[in-house]
Amino acid sequence: MVKRRTIPQMENKTRGDRVVDELLHLIRERGYGAGEKLPNEYELSAQLGVSRNTIREAVRALASRNIVDIRQGAGTFISPKKGVADDPLGFSLMEDRRKLVEDLLQIRCIIEPQIAGLAAQNGMPEDIAILGGLCEEVEVLIRKRGDFMQKDRDFHTQLASCSRNMVMSNLIPVICEGITLFASMVAEQEYEQTVKSHREIYEAVRDRRAADAQQAMLFHLLYNRNRFIADQER
Amino acid sequence: MVKRRTIPQMENKTRGDRVVDELLHLIRERGYGAGEKLPNEYELSAQLGVSRNTIREAVRALASRNIVDIRQGAGTFISPKKGVADDPLGFSLMEDRRKLVEDLLQIRCIIEPQIAGLAAQNGMPEDIAILGGLCEEVEVLIRKRGDFMQKDRDFHTQLASCSRNMVMSNLIPVICEGITLFASMVAEQEYEQTVKSHREIYEAVRDRRAADAQQAMLFHLLYNRNRFIADQER
Repeated sequence: MVKRRTIPQMENKTRGDRVVDELLHLIRERGYGAGEKLPNEYELSAQLGVSRNTIREAVRALASRNIVDIRQGAGTFISPKKGVADDPLGFSLMEDRRKLVEDLLQIRCIIEPQIAGLAAQNGMPEDIAILGGLCEEVEVLIRKRGDFMQKDRDFHTQLASCSRNMVMSNLIPVICEGITLFASMVAEQEYEQTVKSHREIYEAVRDRRAADAQQAMLFHLLYNRNRFIADQER
Repeated sequence: MVKRRTIPQMENKTRGDRVVDELLHLIRERGYGAGEKLPNEYELSAQLGVSRNTIREAVRALASRNIVDIRQGAGTFISPKKGVADDPLGFSLMEDRRKLVEDLLQIRCIIEPQIAGLAAQNGMPEDIAILGGLCEEVEVLIRKRGDFMQKDRDFHTQLASCSRNMVMSNLIPVICEGITLFASMVAEQEYEQTVKSHREIYEAVRDRRAADAQQAMLFHLLYNRNRFIADQER
């Protein structure tokens, strides 16, 4: 599947496309992080040797791809969305919402146990510490019977960061978000099992027990999937 | 992970957003397929009871999400991209291209064997027939020493369709495309092994041998991954 060839992206480019590529190159090279401000139109125009109009169009193209945010009057900033599109995988076109949730749960059962294992093996201590913090936060919210969904998704996303696979870090939030959006069909929140499973996963990652992390995640996901399916059949 | 709540997408919507949602609903409900033409602005304006201007803006928003294609003078058509964004997972922001390819190959080793298993279990006879056709086409191209990459990606995408998991069908092309774009680093095309592996995968799917399909895919991917890594170390 991996072969030498010309890179298709380099072919048939308009000047506008090339300026977009140069801006992307500049962002990557200077290592701009989320929330950081880009140079203004004048500066970019001078640096890339093109008109301010061309720069403005290129910046708009980057904004439509969630790479930058344009804040009127304040400037252009790197978007926290890291270039991941809104609804990147076209969920809004899928008519059967119940099947979409089932398919997303199936994918999670395939991917996330492996992520948990990789997190235990590859996680940096500082990233695992953040995972532990999120585990706590979910627990506190659950004890208060608060809405813990965002923190729950953050926990799973942080686990993907711990795996050190860049694509997983961008993919997992998409899959979790997809489930949240359409899973208003389930009767009850799952409190105790979530606390218990998250803690098991976190502790296995922290103690570098990759096999345990994998199995704890698989149990967590299958438990939720089975609940979802049982709920639908009622 | 799955709980009852209001659907966030329904909150704080502008009228423009609502018209976009109504158009999406209309597309889903009428089951428009790729390449099919939508009613024109006049008709949509009458059907949804909003101005042509509002329709035009909503259609543009759908075009920017790869849901429709606007062809000047000809009309608006359902995009073959099925609402999957260009570069949906933000690959263009990832600086380390070699690591990106490695991460994508790692994900494929996790996901695609499971897809092959599901394809053997769930594939519809007509979808499996298409898979067989693609297997042939790759073989013919390889015998002619032609560029078989697009057909190779089509084979893997069709396998995802056979799995009957809608999200996989949209995700696999993204991952394959990502590898193609950045894998110009590999020295040689892999001819014989590709033919052999694809045929093994196809035959296992056709004969409903899910376990064999899974293992044949795992071998195929690991073989390619190991070649890529060996190539980088040279």
